[in-house]
Amino acid sequence: MKKEKNSLLLNVLHERELVDIAISSGRFQKIVKAGSLNVEEFDSSFKVVDATGLSILPPFYNAHTHAAMTLLRGFADDMPLFRWLSEYIWPLEKKLTAEDVYAGSRLAMLEMIRSGTVFFADMYWHREETIRAAEEMGVRAAIGVTFAENLPHAPFEEYFAFLKNRTFESDLIQLSVMPHSIYTVGDSLFEKCASFAKEEGFILHTHLSETEEEIKNCFKRTGKMPVEHLYDLGVLGENFVAAHGVHVSEKEMELLASSKSTVVHNPASNLKLSSGLFKMQEMLSRNVRIALGTDGASSNNNLDMHEAMKFASLLAKRENPEILPAEEAFKMASRNGALAYGLDAGVIQEGALADALLVDLNNERLVPNYNLISNWVYSADSRSIVSVICNGRFIMENRKIDGEEEIIESAKETAQRLLNS
Amino acid sequence: MKKEKNSLLLNVLHERELVDIAISSGRFQKIVKAGSLNVEEFDSSFKVVDATGLSILPPFYNAHTHAAMTLLRGFADDMPLFRWLSEYIWPLEKKLTAEDVYAGSRLAMLEMIRSGTVFFADMYWHREETIRAAEEMGVRAAIGVTFAENLPHAPFEEYFAFLKNRTFESDLIQLSVMPHSIYTVGDSLFEKCASFAKEEGFILHTHLSETEEEIKNCFKRTGKMPVEHLYDLGVLGENFVAAHGVHVSEKEMELLASSKSTVVHNPASNLKLSSGLFKMQEMLSRNVRIALGTDGASSNNNLDMHEAMKFASLLAKRENPEILPAEEAFKMASRNGALAYGLDAGVIQEGALADALLVDLNNERLVPNYNLISNWVYSADSRSIVSVICNGRFIMENRKIDGEEEIIESAKETAQRLLNS
Repeated sequence: MKKEKNSLLLNVLHERELVDIAISSGRFQKIVKAGSLNVEEFDSSFKVVDATGLSILPPFYNAHTHAAMTLLRGFADDMPLFRWLSEYIWPLEKKLTAEDVYAGSRLAMLEMIRSGTVFFADMYWHREETIRAAEEMGVRAAIGVTFAENLPHAPFEEYFAFLKNRTFESDLIQLSVMPHSIYTVGDSLFEKCASFAKEEGFILHTHLSETEEEIKNCFKRTGKMPVEHLYDLGVLGENFVAAHGVHVSEKEMELLASSKSTVVHNPASNLKLSSGLFKMQEMLSRNVRIALGTDGASSNNNLDMHEAMKFASLLAKRENPEILPAEEAFKMASRNGALAYGLDAGVIQEGALADALLVDLNNERLVPNYNLISNWVYSADSRSIVSVICNGRFIMENRKIDGEEEIIESAKETAQRLLNS
Repeated sequence: MKKEKNSLLLNVLHERELVDIAISSGRFQKIVKAGSLNVEEFDSSFKVVDATGLSILPPFYNAHTHAAMTLLRGFADDMPLFRWLSEYIWPLEKKLTAEDVYAGSRLAMLEMIRSGTVFFADMYWHREETIRAAEEMGVRAAIGVTFAENLPHAPFEEYFAFLKNRTFESDLIQLSVMPHSIYTVGDSLFEKCASFAKEEGFILHTHLSETEEEIKNCFKRTGKMPVEHLYDLGVLGENFVAAHGVHVSEKEMELLASSKSTVVHNPASNLKLSSGLFKMQEMLSRNVRIALGTDGASSNNNLDMHEAMKFASLLAKRENPEILPAEEAFKMASRNGALAYGLDAGVIQEGALADALLVDLNNERLVPNYNLISNWVYSADSRSIVSVICNGRFIMENRKIDGEEEIIESAKETAQRLLNS
C-alpha cells in the first residue's frame, strides 16, 4: 500500500468482534479479524490507533439543513410560522454579512461533528463562506447554489456558470442545484435547474410539500399536487432530493418511488412548525428512499441527527409499534443520506468512503449491550461519541476538535453584534 | 449561620446575573448579587465553589419511571405491546433477583444524574434495593409500594404496615402508595389504597388511561371511563399522580383539574408503544397540572428528561406552534414534578430545597444565548451538564460521579447473567 498522510490502522470493535481496519486514500481498505492483517504491508505513514474499548459505527449524513442559522438559535420560538418568519427570522437574516455566515457555519459544523455528523446538505447564501468553513473543519458538504426569484439576486446565468466552473481542492465538497421551492421559483427556471442538474451531474435539492398552504396554492395555480407538478416539469429522478414531503398523495409517493427520488424527513422541524405529520408507513410501503435531516437550528433548535432518528422512529410508531425499527431509522440517518448525495458512505465496509464514529460502550446509555443499534437510536446521546473520522481523517479525536474555543467565542460575538445592530 | 456539612457558597450565573448563593441545611438560604454577601456570616464549614463560567438551573424531576428496567434496555423493541410484554419483558423480569434490581437501579440513577435528574418516582419490586441504591447515590426518590393482585404477593396488610413503619435516615426518600392500575387492582383494594394514602399523608401513584384497551375494558366493567371511575372511588386529589392520561374525556380532564391531581405525560413511551397522542392543549386549557416522566428504559429507551421535554413540547405543537412554549415545558419537567410529590423544589429561590444543575454556557448548543430556556429545552443535551446538586450536596461534580465505573461493570455482568440464565 502506498504511503500517504491520513492513513490509519484501527484496532476496534465492529459488530461485537475485535477487528483491524486499514484506512488509506479516504477509504476502508481492509476490515479483518484482529491480528490477521499482514503488518508488512503497512509502513510508518500509517497512524496506529488502539480503540479496543470503542465500537465503530457509521456516522450521520444530515440531508437537509441551513447551517448558519445556528446564529438564530432560540431567537424566536413558539409562534405561528408567518409571524415567526416576518417579524423575527427575516429581519435578523437581512443583517447577516458574509463573515457572520462563516461564524454561524463553523458553529453548526462544530455541533454536527460533536453529535456524529460528517456531512450536511446546506441551503443558504454567502456560499463561499460555508465552503471555507467546511474545508477548514474537514467535513463533507453539498453546498447549495440557491435559486429564489422572490429575493434580490444576480442574473441566474451567473449561478449556472458558477456551478460549472467552481472547482475544489478536495472531493469532500460538492455543489448542488437548489431551487428554493415551487413558491419562490417559477416553472421555467425550475425546468432549467432540472435539466442543468441532470446534464451536468448535480444533485437537485428543494423544499417540497412542507405545508398545507403550499399544496393549496400549487393546486390553485397548476391543478396538480406539488410532486406531480415537478414530475411533469421533469424534475424527479435519482438526483432529486426533496426536503419535507409531508403532504403527499398516494400517487405522488408512487412517483417519488418509481423515479428513485429521495425524500428528506425533518421530524423535529415539522412538529415545531406544525407543518404536519410525515406519512412514514405509507412511504415505506411504497419503497420511497427516505433520508433524515435536522432543518435549520432556528426551527429545531439543534442539528442533532440522534434526535432526528429517535423522533422519526417514535413518531412513525404513533399508530403501530412495528414501523421503522431501529436498524431502519439508523440507515435513514446514515447510509440513505449518503446515497442521496451520491456518496458511497454511511457503512463500515471495505471499499466504502472511510467515515466513522468511535463510540464508548461504557457510556451508561449503551449499557446493557443486548442490541447496540437499538441503544444507538433510542438511548444514546452525543456524550458517547469519542472520535469522528471523515474521509479517513480524525475531525474529532478523543473529544477534541481543533479551534473549538475560538469558534464558540466568534459565534457569541457575532450574535451580540446582530442583536445590537 | 450554623456549621454543617454540605454547606456551599456558590458564585454562579443566574438568569444572566452573577450571584452568590449560600446553601445549607439542604436549602437555598441566600441568593444575592455577587459580592453582596456578608462573608462574616459564613465559616470554614462552607465549601466555596467558583462557578462563574456556569449557569445555575433547576434540575429535573422524573415523575414516572421503573428504574431497574435499565437492565432491559434494548432487549426487545419494535413490536406490538402484548407480544413484547409476554414473550420478552415478563420472562426476563421473572429472573430478576434483589441484587439485579440493585444493579439496575444504580445504572438508572447514574444515567439520571448525568442527564440532570435529581428525583424519580419509581414503581417496581425489591423496593429495599432501590432504596439502598438511592441512598448511596444521594438522589431523591418516591419509592413505590406496588399493589398488583394479578401477581404473587404477600398479604396486602403487610404492605400497609410497611408504608406506616418504614422510616429513613434522610428525608430524600419517601414511600408512595402505588396500586399498579385499574386492571390489576380491584375496586375494593383501590379504595383502601386511596383512603390509606390520604389519611397517612402519602402520594398515590398509578398507571391510568394509557391504552384504548384499558378504556374499553373499564367501560365494559363499570359503565364509566377510568378517571371517572377512580373519582367515584375517592382516589383523586392533591396527592394523586396519574401516569399517562392519554385517553381522557373532557369531563375527566375537568375532574383531574378540580381535584388538583397531577397527570404525568410520558411522551417517548406513549409513542414507542403506540399508546396514543396526549391531549396537551386540552389539558392545559383546563389547568390540569402536568409533570413529565420517561417511563422505564425498556419503552423509551433512556431516562433523559431533556428528551421528555422536547418530545412533549414538539408533539404538543403538531397542530399549533404556540402550544407548550419552552418555559412551560421546562416547568413541567422540573417544578411540576417536584410539586406533584410534595417537594418545594425545582426552582432556584431562597427557601426552596437546594437542588440545581450547573451548566456550561460554552457548550455549542447553548450558543448563541438569546434565550437560555429555549436552548435548554430545544437544543441542549446532557453534555452541557457539568455538576448536579441535590439537597445542597454535589452528586456529580465536574462531571465526576462516585463509583461510576463499578456501576457500569456491575450492570454489564448482571445483564450477561440474565441472558445466560
